[in-house]
Amino acid sequence: MNRSRTGNTFRSPISQANGWREGARFAPDRPLINVSQAAPVEPPPTALRQAIAEAILTDDSTHLYGPVLGLPALRTALAGRIARQYCGHVTADQVAITAGCNQAFTAALAALTGEGDEVILPTPWYFNHKMWLDMSGVRAVALPTGEDMLPDPDAAAALIGPRTRAIALVTPNNPAGVEYPADLLRAFLDLARTHGLRLLVDETYRDFHSRPGAPHDLFTDEGWDETLMHLYSFSKAYRLTGHRVGALVAAPGLLGEAEKFLDTVTICPSQIGQRAALWGIGNLDRWLAGQRDEILARRAAISGGFAPLAERGWRLRGLGAYFAYVEHPFEMDSDTLAQRLVAEAAILLLPASMFVPETDPTGRRRLRIAFANLDRAGIATLFQRLQGLPF
Amino acid sequence: MNRSRTGNTFRSPISQANGWREGARFAPDRPLINVSQAAPVEPPPTALRQAIAEAILTDDSTHLYGPVLGLPALRTALAGRIARQYCGHVTADQVAITAGCNQAFTAALAALTGEGDEVILPTPWYFNHKMWLDMSGVRAVALPTGEDMLPDPDAAAALIGPRTRAIALVTPNNPAGVEYPADLLRAFLDLARTHGLRLLVDETYRDFHSRPGAPHDLFTDEGWDETLMHLYSFSKAYRLTGHRVGALVAAPGLLGEAEKFLDTVTICPSQIGQRAALWGIGNLDRWLAGQRDEILARRAAISGGFAPLAERGWRLRGLGAYFAYVEHPFEMDSDTLAQRLVAEAAILLLPASMFVPETDPTGRRRLRIAFANLDRAGIATLFQRLQGLPF
Repeated sequence: MNRSRTGNTFRSPISQANGWREGARFAPDRPLINVSQAAPVEPPPTALRQAIAEAILTDDSTHLYGPVLGLPALRTALAGRIARQYCGHVTADQVAITAGCNQAFTAALAALTGEGDEVILPTPWYFNHKMWLDMSGVRAVALPTGEDMLPDPDAAAALIGPRTRAIALVTPNNPAGVEYPADLLRAFLDLARTHGLRLLVDETYRDFHSRPGAPHDLFTDEGWDETLMHLYSFSKAYRLTGHRVGALVAAPGLLGEAEKFLDTVTICPSQIGQRAALWGIGNLDRWLAGQRDEILARRAAISGGFAPLAERGWRLRGLGAYFAYVEHPFEMDSDTLAQRLVAEAAILLLPASMFVPETDPTGRRRLRIAFANLDRAGIATLFQRLQGLPF
Repeated sequence: MNRSRTGNTFRSPISQANGWREGARFAPDRPLINVSQAAPVEPPPTALRQAIAEAILTDDSTHLYGPVLGLPALRTALAGRIARQYCGHVTADQVAITAGCNQAFTAALAALTGEGDEVILPTPWYFNHKMWLDMSGVRAVALPTGEDMLPDPDAAAALIGPRTRAIALVTPNNPAGVEYPADLLRAFLDLARTHGLRLLVDETYRDFHSRPGAPHDLFTDEGWDETLMHLYSFSKAYRLTGHRVGALVAAPGLLGEAEKFLDTVTICPSQIGQRAALWGIGNLDRWLAGQRDEILARRAAISGGFAPLAERGWRLRGLGAYFAYVEHPFEMDSDTLAQRLVAEAAILLLPASMFVPETDPTGRRRLRIAFANLDRAGIATLFQRLQGLPF
């Protein structure tokens, strides 16, 4: 008997990690530091909450089905925002709203690939991308990144075969944090175009990019949508994780294909979540800029405070967006270390083994720290605990 | 080049039908009667709206990620409700909350089937079920229903082969309306159990069942979850279509498999939608009973008013829940007729060709009328227009 689709993949790392803390008890003066998930722990701004509460009470359509590909006003607003931010050409019919950015990836892949196809993913990869490829019968072809955690287009070119359909990048990267340079993204677009592939660029964390201005110039090409598919999330920008709102930006023809999948899997995105995102685009630019400043300050606190850990043999391999990707100095596998950190240091984080193929030796040595919820004091406490590990 | 997953299926019938009305103009005294979709057009009760608006303002967790399988309080409440309504044994760990009932079906299938497997579906089928099977590489084995629109377990038994994994039923049925008798469901459970298959029973419309009490006794078996998977939707009961809340009720081990899919496709169901459903379970029993009375009155208006259409050669093949399934007397295909009805009678409905394989001759002759949004006067108007067709 063949395996079911879910039988072809692993349990969600977030669920696995939550399992480690079950039954664990933490001293009141030493609470758990949870850096396992890239998720805001604060609610959205009060004015947004008031706006959507008002819509709940007064706008009947917030409770009823909406278009499969999303609220037309939100599609238009996001198209305009991307066009402004990237100085590019994006129209509403190139934008689909999805129930979160994970769903944007699954819908894109359903429109692009069939059983036995291949997609190239730089490693470390985002685990839900790998899980979806496993479940949809698509082989994830690992493209190991170098010392700088960046993928090499020439190395990618060597992996392209007759079943390759796409290359999927995440920038700023999850889990490694690194921001892919604009010219690197351009090189990947050229590579994909040359080989007739699609280039997926997941920019869930783009609002926390350290460089001002457009993170790349791909949207300035008139024909970008023949190759590029852009993925975005409203979850991090406006703290809407519980509302499930993301986007897939691509050629209208591909969105028409994705519509079949989206209709069958959720019918439409949450109507109130879409209104929250629309209100955010219209009203939260300045607030979001402040959030970005805070995340960048926390990032600076990570790099600025890392020296004592470096002296103990730790290495900072990647840093950006919500993530630090670090190498530990201990003679144990990263997943053993991660589980011991819960009990012995009251720290919950994910081991790199969850982000790479089993055969990749970096999986044993590295850890992902989703630091965005830690303020400077919290980062200092985290580092103190890591410095004081009893092994 | 092989086809993509979405390339293996058809465009959503709802989207197709919405395409037919584009550009159509309707006289002010003869507005469109839209009986194409089973969707409430009224919002939920004011008290529910107030309750979730309050949660938006005061409960931070409504904006943040929740558990993949749903809010524990909602899982517990639904388990209790099913146990009471069906006099059965259901616990919270047998309940997963999903982003709508379509998603419950997709998650169940991902946990059960792999490429090349087979699932038996009575015809006419619910189109999104067929679409998902197409997209997941599972062959939908059609089980034609008889004159009474009910599937025959012996006919189903003859279709079981080595790749068969499940039988999927919908009761009350979409599109045919018929309510499957309790002993028929029992016979299908026995059949599935004997052959080591799963029996999926989608009861999206169970709150509008015409018989009082439990619609079947399958949950009274101690070991029901070794065979049965129950699907439910909060969308119709509490008018929450825009919030996307459904449920999958099954063995905990299967829900653990489904969790991989749900985590990857949406991470968690809408938090505010889940709170709306929870509030509904706690407060809307009496209100829902009134809604059911109204739907049953509309159903009676359909059967009571059908005689003039019968005189013109129409036949009422199935009636129940939100649907009437009718046979037309004209010398044209149902999809041609459905498209002409938009322009010539200001009626939007779906032809049976969208619910059966191309080779099934009933597809040419039948139509689905989703009547739930029409009051008695609206039903009378619909029937007058059908009686007065100029062909």
